[in-house]
Amino acid sequence: MAVVQRDSGRRRLLGPIRRAGRSPRIELAEQTGISRATVTTITAELIQAGLVEEVPRAEETGDGRRGRPRVDLKIRGAARRVAGIKIAHDRLSLVLREFEGAQLAALECDLSAPLLRPEALADELAEAVARLARAGGVAPGEIAGIGLGIAGVVDADQGLVYWSPSLTRRNVDLARLLNDRLERPAFVDNDANLVAVAEKNFGLGQAHSDFIVVTIEAGVGMGLVLGGELYRGTRGCGAELGHTKVHLDGAVCRCGQRGCLEAYVADYALLREAQALPGADPGLSGSGQIEALLAAARAGEPQARRIVDRAGRIFALGLANLVNIFDPELIILSGEQMQFDHLYAEAVIDEMRKSIVQVDKPPPEVVIHKWGHLMWARGAAAYALDRISDLALAELGDG
Amino acid sequence: MAVVQRDSGRRRLLGPIRRAGRSPRIELAEQTGISRATVTTITAELIQAGLVEEVPRAEETGDGRRGRPRVDLKIRGAARRVAGIKIAHDRLSLVLREFEGAQLAALECDLSAPLLRPEALADELAEAVARLARAGGVAPGEIAGIGLGIAGVVDADQGLVYWSPSLTRRNVDLARLLNDRLERPAFVDNDANLVAVAEKNFGLGQAHSDFIVVTIEAGVGMGLVLGGELYRGTRGCGAELGHTKVHLDGAVCRCGQRGCLEAYVADYALLREAQALPGADPGLSGSGQIEALLAAARAGEPQARRIVDRAGRIFALGLANLVNIFDPELIILSGEQMQFDHLYAEAVIDEMRKSIVQVDKPPPEVVIHKWGHLMWARGAAAYALDRISDLALAELGDG
Repeated sequence: MAVVQRDSGRRRLLGPIRRAGRSPRIELAEQTGISRATVTTITAELIQAGLVEEVPRAEETGDGRRGRPRVDLKIRGAARRVAGIKIAHDRLSLVLREFEGAQLAALECDLSAPLLRPEALADELAEAVARLARAGGVAPGEIAGIGLGIAGVVDADQGLVYWSPSLTRRNVDLARLLNDRLERPAFVDNDANLVAVAEKNFGLGQAHSDFIVVTIEAGVGMGLVLGGELYRGTRGCGAELGHTKVHLDGAVCRCGQRGCLEAYVADYALLREAQALPGADPGLSGSGQIEALLAAARAGEPQARRIVDRAGRIFALGLANLVNIFDPELIILSGEQMQFDHLYAEAVIDEMRKSIVQVDKPPPEVVIHKWGHLMWARGAAAYALDRISDLALAELGDG
Repeated sequence: MAVVQRDSGRRRLLGPIRRAGRSPRIELAEQTGISRATVTTITAELIQAGLVEEVPRAEETGDGRRGRPRVDLKIRGAARRVAGIKIAHDRLSLVLREFEGAQLAALECDLSAPLLRPEALADELAEAVARLARAGGVAPGEIAGIGLGIAGVVDADQGLVYWSPSLTRRNVDLARLLNDRLERPAFVDNDANLVAVAEKNFGLGQAHSDFIVVTIEAGVGMGLVLGGELYRGTRGCGAELGHTKVHLDGAVCRCGQRGCLEAYVADYALLREAQALPGADPGLSGSGQIEALLAAARAGEPQARRIVDRAGRIFALGLANLVNIFDPELIILSGEQMQFDHLYAEAVIDEMRKSIVQVDKPPPEVVIHKWGHLMWARGAAAYALDRISDLALAELGDG
């Protein structure tokens, strides 16, 4: 019981110190409702453990009083370093961040293939993390933990990947595999969840307690923040928008079922249709062909236009279903590539607005947030920081 | 600030007293973490306000000690009485309950029509509440508040009905209208939300913190309990399953849009198809025709079978989408009429299980809970009790 209370007191202080940047003890006491004496005791432990440090307060002009110098508390940046990694098809994006949140290094590199055996993926991740450490000027051993965002169905608590388009096998205990290979704690989550974490911590969701992030890449992902917290479902596999059904007995999806949203809006779905068109060039590669299709649609070529328009309308239908079910304040459409502009189009958002239950209140706000894979990696690093903080506090035990 | 703390202390005690049935002060202090002295002060106020009463503890056998008699605290049943009402098409179900929860009376009666002007509905509800009071042997003035469950899109906080199949107008401030007509506080919510409240308080959801209730009547309703609380969305109009889209440009729905789940599974949707069949009897009334259709399907008549089977498969698709999005512990299918057995069929649940994202964990439990409209009314009464408790505490002010 004492451990729990002590641990929870530390947790209740570390969060506010992190959010405040710098904060005097008295403000922490006021903010948390913890007594000044207990704040003094607990912060002494946090300082001793090297997680928090004292810094002189910025001069107050015109004060002139002498006496004991005033200090603020802040997170000790050097306390821990974490790596955040995002896998996007055959690319890796990595960031190295210190405990206070500052970025030490970032890099992007290729995977040898978009689909790998878990052991091979672990090897390539280990090599990339070593490069990241060199880029940040730290020894690999100084990285306290790794956060990884991966597409697919993930039980984050367990670090278990039920299924991922990046892995040759199902039901991979990827957190343990990475932990063993990299010799440090690894935390794995669905990539769209980590984008939602990033939007909540330092993106467009900061001021909102209930919002939905929809990500568009090769697949359609979703992260759900309810009451200020990421919602994960009870088996760790909620928020699977891409495989909600939009058509009974519809088009075949890569997941093996029929009628999934992805089977109508993903690249491969557009290609499948384009390849059936008369005059399709079988010699074009996948990405070349999708670019040709989208260019033709933009140029107004009617058949290409119809293919792309339908994808947009089905995407709007999926968004409208989310609004009907959640009635969120905000939907953030988050993705990197200009390639998906047809899904972010005003016509798509309009179609969504027409397809929700009509009440005499404005529909939820929809914002488009284009950011690169490094931001996804930053979300993975933020997740690793949270989990590493928990571990650091647990190590303190009963002081 | 003092008012808030006082009010919140009372609130923190009233709930545990209600849940415990009977509880000594010392247990309340232990359970809530409120000091024994403060528990004594606050319970004295609650007793003085007539909300709580002392009762002698049941004799402890073999005790034999003398001295001050021991007492428990309990909710004072006579403190307040509330009515709970459910509107189902052209029928009203009402229950009268006292503050401790015991049922004093129940009745069912007809509305003059299934679609009414709001003022006419208020008149008929007032008359029904007067009958309910007589049935319970209390004066109408002794009913402290009314809870009403109605189909449609409702902002419960505001008591505003954006749209309901029972009302001729949109955007009706029904809570105020009923408040004025009945001269006592009225609380209005979507009926499926109140079923979820009932399942959480005294039904199959008692042991669960995350579950979904799907109701089937003339329409398809949904109530969502997340983290032990009813989820209402941010505009008060979340959890609209019946109007999620299952088909792009699909069948016309009574809401005016196309492709809604209800446009495939509701009675009128089945009738629409049945009436197009060769040999359909145009002389049969709606309910006669739906019964004939369902009987023909049960008897294996192929065309009727196909109509009913498709409704079941579309319903399964809607359920699967909920599972993919929420990953709940439990889905409760809640309805009254045997008429909907084709939607509760094992084949439908199987189809749902096949249509969710496949992970190597069991799918969520699905239970079928058939209960009458009086249970829906009981959910409405439970909601009114909660809100009336809040009002009673607010009246106490700063003591």
